[in-house]
Amino acid sequence: MTTLSPGATIGILGGGQLGRMLAVAAAELGFDVHVLTPEADSPAARVAAQCTQAAYDDASALAAFARAVDVVTFEFENVPAATVDALVAAGAIVRPGGRALAVAQDRLLEKAFLNEAGAPTVAHRRIGTAADIPAALAELGAPALLKTRRLGYDGKGQAWVRHPDEAAAAWAAIGAAPAILEAAAPFEREISVVAARGVDGAVAVYDVCENRHADGILAETTAPARVTAATAADAIAATRNVIAALDYVGVLAIEFFVLPDGSILANEMAPRVHNSGHWTQDACVACQFENQIRAVAGWPLGDVTRFADVRMLNLIGDAAAHWRVHAEAPGAALHLYGKREARTGRKMGHVTYLSNLRSSSAV
Amino acid sequence: MTTLSPGATIGILGGGQLGRMLAVAAAELGFDVHVLTPEADSPAARVAAQCTQAAYDDASALAAFARAVDVVTFEFENVPAATVDALVAAGAIVRPGGRALAVAQDRLLEKAFLNEAGAPTVAHRRIGTAADIPAALAELGAPALLKTRRLGYDGKGQAWVRHPDEAAAAWAAIGAAPAILEAAAPFEREISVVAARGVDGAVAVYDVCENRHADGILAETTAPARVTAATAADAIAATRNVIAALDYVGVLAIEFFVLPDGSILANEMAPRVHNSGHWTQDACVACQFENQIRAVAGWPLGDVTRFADVRMLNLIGDAAAHWRVHAEAPGAALHLYGKREARTGRKMGHVTYLSNLRSSSAV
Repeated sequence: MTTLSPGATIGILGGGQLGRMLAVAAAELGFDVHVLTPEADSPAARVAAQCTQAAYDDASALAAFARAVDVVTFEFENVPAATVDALVAAGAIVRPGGRALAVAQDRLLEKAFLNEAGAPTVAHRRIGTAADIPAALAELGAPALLKTRRLGYDGKGQAWVRHPDEAAAAWAAIGAAPAILEAAAPFEREISVVAARGVDGAVAVYDVCENRHADGILAETTAPARVTAATAADAIAATRNVIAALDYVGVLAIEFFVLPDGSILANEMAPRVHNSGHWTQDACVACQFENQIRAVAGWPLGDVTRFADVRMLNLIGDAAAHWRVHAEAPGAALHLYGKREARTGRKMGHVTYLSNLRSSSAV
Repeated sequence: MTTLSPGATIGILGGGQLGRMLAVAAAELGFDVHVLTPEADSPAARVAAQCTQAAYDDASALAAFARAVDVVTFEFENVPAATVDALVAAGAIVRPGGRALAVAQDRLLEKAFLNEAGAPTVAHRRIGTAADIPAALAELGAPALLKTRRLGYDGKGQAWVRHPDEAAAAWAAIGAAPAILEAAAPFEREISVVAARGVDGAVAVYDVCENRHADGILAETTAPARVTAATAADAIAATRNVIAALDYVGVLAIEFFVLPDGSILANEMAPRVHNSGHWTQDACVACQFENQIRAVAGWPLGDVTRFADVRMLNLIGDAAAHWRVHAEAPGAALHLYGKREARTGRKMGHVTYLSNLRSSSAV
């Protein structure tokens, strides 16, 4: 059980906005940060003490990185298993470990794991070829959602199947890759639970929040979620089961569907800091980024107390051009990621609107 | 009136903890940061996109720095006037400008300016040589405090004079430099006001906080200050007068003595983010570092609402070795500066204890 002292170096795989916010959180605790990313001029590298620009399969770069840092963590769940293996072989401690990545990288393994850990999911079937789709659709009921087992995110690699005749087209749409077919969930809303687990097994859970997606991308998160205390408790209990079953170290997020009767179904998990937890930066004593750093550094977890109600809006593509509107608004905490180009669908920043803050008295 | 867009580069003179926290605040708003400091491996450089390691009188380095950045600000008030002149000559916008520096660098000018701007100070006399001290002491009453006009901080360059016989020793103790002699203020407590002023003249003032020093160094700041509403209003009004009189852009802090009758005397001003404003990082929507960056970038100021009561403790020298105690405490926000060596009297970090947070409800 390694505990890092301030001044140690945290290695981060990935140079995007999550890596940038992790790097800032690490710096606030007195750590140095070393980023490894294939990207030139990445958002994370610009706030880090060191950056290695290299491919994730560059064996010599990985070995040097492993030697240069005291622990390795990552901003994205699609870190290749071979990358983690190479880092570990070179002596690195990688947190969270390979098991969480393996589970989270494959939707079929993930659903099986969630169910086994006590987090119910939608019914689903394994799809090896287009020919598997009609029978699975008959069992699950139409419409059903075809998803690649691997590498899907932000709505990519997904296609609805409304009728057996659409099987071939859906299969082609997702790239004819190994897939699962998921029963449609008649959900009323989607919520997330963001939790952290320390090296010592301690778990801290942020208040349950609620998500709204647009075009398959998270558009807005609000906290608290508009769910009953029983539903919130169920979601937190399921998350605690999962994080313990993985013997996890770090921050993990699970998205749940909430059905009309208040019951929940786990949709997917992310073995990393998550967009639906960005509000914790502005409304909690210790945010998800700080707790990820604390956990991987072997530190005690920070206080997850929420002291405001929040509405977090993602600033996607051109929406970031309207930064001034948010910069001027009372109660607004603006975060921009330093990305050079505002492409359609690209997450450029977010803004958290705080409300119901404790009113401060002059004396 | 220059307004910078996200992606622009903020230049920061100084590589210490204030520069580091400014750099982080700039990054959060999507800016790149370029630090100029003579120090190798400085705390600020390790969170900045670029660092120029150069002396503050290195003309070619200053010219290149001026061309590389979109605005220049600084973490310390003792920036040489020649440095500012060289930057301006090379085309840089320097905020706050040279006038605030000139006033703040000379205790005699500072006191004259404060008084003229409507912020009363202790009575004081100009001291050109040791021979000036006895007469000044007779006028001001003993004991009185001898301070160098320039370059004093954290209690350095100061000596008490209790009797005319001590004049020579006190003069020697402060380095036989041009000085002022200040009447002792029978103050009950010391408070600070941290305020920001935008390019558009808008002013935002944080809640008045209270300071406790030990060995001449700030040890603890609490907010709110234990003063009456009238005293707080007087301090805020004086600060508003000063910041407007300077036509200031950025964050400015003024320390005040509070006398037993509730009246105030301005002690000193800092034309920069200030240690007594560190609590704003954890207890306000927009902290002093963010507002400094917003102001120098020509942005609207951020919301200074305070949503918790705070007790900020400086971690000085070996005190930082006890980081774990603070890391474990509920309601504690820990900040460490990444300094390599914990020398006596060196500010290594701080921790802000939050209380009276709005309690969050599950739903």
